[in-house]
Amino acid sequence: MTDRPTTAEIRDARAGLAGIARQTPVQRSETLSRLAGRPTYLKAENLQRTGSFKVRGAVTKLSSLDQAERAVGVIAASAGNHGQAVAWAASEVGVRSTVFMPVNAAFAKIDATRDYGADVVLAGELLDDSLVAARARAEETGAVIVHPFDDPVVVAGQGTLGLELADQLPEIGTIVIPVGGGGLASGVALALGEARPAVKLVGVQADRCAPYAGGIVFGPTIADGIAVKQPGALTRPILDERLDDVVTVSDEDIAEAIVLLLERAKLVVEGAGAAGVAALLAGKVPGDGPVCVILSGGNIDASLLTEVTRYALTRGGRHLVVRTRVADRPGQLGQLLTRLAAEGVNVLEVTHEREGMDLPMGDTGIGLILLTRGEDHCRELLAAMTDWGYPVGRVT
Amino acid sequence: MTDRPTTAEIRDARAGLAGIARQTPVQRSETLSRLAGRPTYLKAENLQRTGSFKVRGAVTKLSSLDQAERAVGVIAASAGNHGQAVAWAASEVGVRSTVFMPVNAAFAKIDATRDYGADVVLAGELLDDSLVAARARAEETGAVIVHPFDDPVVVAGQGTLGLELADQLPEIGTIVIPVGGGGLASGVALALGEARPAVKLVGVQADRCAPYAGGIVFGPTIADGIAVKQPGALTRPILDERLDDVVTVSDEDIAEAIVLLLERAKLVVEGAGAAGVAALLAGKVPGDGPVCVILSGGNIDASLLTEVTRYALTRGGRHLVVRTRVADRPGQLGQLLTRLAAEGVNVLEVTHEREGMDLPMGDTGIGLILLTRGEDHCRELLAAMTDWGYPVGRVT
Repeated sequence: MTDRPTTAEIRDARAGLAGIARQTPVQRSETLSRLAGRPTYLKAENLQRTGSFKVRGAVTKLSSLDQAERAVGVIAASAGNHGQAVAWAASEVGVRSTVFMPVNAAFAKIDATRDYGADVVLAGELLDDSLVAARARAEETGAVIVHPFDDPVVVAGQGTLGLELADQLPEIGTIVIPVGGGGLASGVALALGEARPAVKLVGVQADRCAPYAGGIVFGPTIADGIAVKQPGALTRPILDERLDDVVTVSDEDIAEAIVLLLERAKLVVEGAGAAGVAALLAGKVPGDGPVCVILSGGNIDASLLTEVTRYALTRGGRHLVVRTRVADRPGQLGQLLTRLAAEGVNVLEVTHEREGMDLPMGDTGIGLILLTRGEDHCRELLAAMTDWGYPVGRVT
Repeated sequence: MTDRPTTAEIRDARAGLAGIARQTPVQRSETLSRLAGRPTYLKAENLQRTGSFKVRGAVTKLSSLDQAERAVGVIAASAGNHGQAVAWAASEVGVRSTVFMPVNAAFAKIDATRDYGADVVLAGELLDDSLVAARARAEETGAVIVHPFDDPVVVAGQGTLGLELADQLPEIGTIVIPVGGGGLASGVALALGEARPAVKLVGVQADRCAPYAGGIVFGPTIADGIAVKQPGALTRPILDERLDDVVTVSDEDIAEAIVLLLERAKLVVEGAGAAGVAALLAGKVPGDGPVCVILSGGNIDASLLTEVTRYALTRGGRHLVVRTRVADRPGQLGQLLTRLAAEGVNVLEVTHEREGMDLPMGDTGIGLILLTRGEDHCRELLAAMTDWGYPVGRVT
């Protein structure tokens, strides 16, 4: 295929994935349904093999290669999910793979790509540099480069998610899809175009990198999986034609969506994967009928996850960061902590500062991080501390 | 029913749950299969409604009540999953519920129980005290108390998970089940006894609270969902008869299992729910054929999850905590950080201490938390710092 894949080709791709990629579950979320005011379903593609939808396209592409191409092996450039998917798919299909990654790619991603069986080559500071190195190697060896999105076979593979969803949720009216290069969104659009033409498709981009949404900013975002500068030559026209809306969300909203999915849906979802939930909660998804949000991937390492969680808990008022001061006499800090304990408040962190902070002579600065039940509780605690005679300043 | 539930009763319970409880997915984990050296499947019951298997028993019990009993409402005592499940099931069935919880129960659990529709009464320091209060209220009002495990109807409900698993994994040889009061384990044992008598059942307890495993210690554990002092009068004999083994795991191993499930399986699993994976990774699950681990619940709040993750990352060498010292002259700390940056190491935390730590005159103590790729990388970094002339001490 050189043009857009047809529905028949997407159906063939789906048959080809049977027993290799997973049919990922869809579940209704009561919490999100309540918060969004409409029946809300989650397509848990974060549970896909290698942790993202990318294996659908990678396996489809690798299966399409002829014997001569397979003998040479394949090449990809990626800082994340695409590289892992190609590495895994190549092992599955029995082909050698080489993945070019930026030198400063996260350890966890480099290690995962290698664990899945790829030769990893660290090349260049940015992904674009890795891509140049990958192309040079491909010229040299004749190996096929697996493009992350701008290839009809890859798009057909990603489109299998759309067919799956149509089976799992016959009644759905709106589907929310993260948009980076547009491979997933265009695949789903083509898959549903024939089967379910009435379904509304809403694309979501991070506001720090939103070329499809008309933004021109390109910056680092927690949704690195959809931070793509160059929309695809194949995918862009499909999206222009088939998406009903493209909306943007902030990194702050994405962080809160990640934590909500952790706590309520019990799912680990990466920034790009949580962008759709962020859009829904921010009231940016038009319409009022049943909506399904595609959680496109779950590859976020545990260390970053803890940072995001701390940020979101503080922003949501569940961690209260407060500065106060006590007289610099024995027992003063102990008394404050005893009073907080009597309120049933868990103290996560205490710092004790004798200098700076505009401290009056004879006072000691105290920094506290308190575990609360939310914003209302924060206000109660600040009021209580004030009543007890402590000057309080909230750090926000 | 007053005796053990029959397989027919468990089948009836399953029919009664259709459309209310979820059939939760089972997925093969490549990472765990590799680490355990045998095909390993995960039953993702953490994705069950209310985040644990407890709704199966609660809905089954509440559905069994007659009109008069329903009119009075139901009572439960719980610090966690059982209370949430009863609250949710009661709303679902259209019955009022009152849940007695210890006064120091986690905010998140109190709020969730209330959100699901229960009247929450905070009573007593410990769960036993809440139970006394619950019994007094039940005497007063005639309301039915829903026991968390020692009730044949509840056991029949939990047993539905076993029937589901038998359908999902016809080839399974061993099932690993967390054991607290024993409701889930005895239900699954009874469900499989007839259909799949050859399946081996391995129970897991936290070593800090392991009455079934012959331990007598009772202490707080991260696996609070299975920290039960009193084995059930109904459930104990079933487990004595049907479990092939009961093994114990440490809180440290459970913490690592939680993080492995987060990063690799993309699932949020609470301590009790991760105990089976901890047992498998510790080599404590006998046999070598295909094994399925039941992830019984996912109710761990985000704040605790970050603490557990930090602990496990440090224990696994992914966070390296190191103390060193530099001369107390301008630029010395900057030079150390610049050298670490050149190694591609991310510095998570720096402290700068001028007192204590047996510091020679003129030196400043430096505490660092570094993000590494694991134990080997830690050793490389410590060696590099030593080469550069810094005296290093690892904090373990």
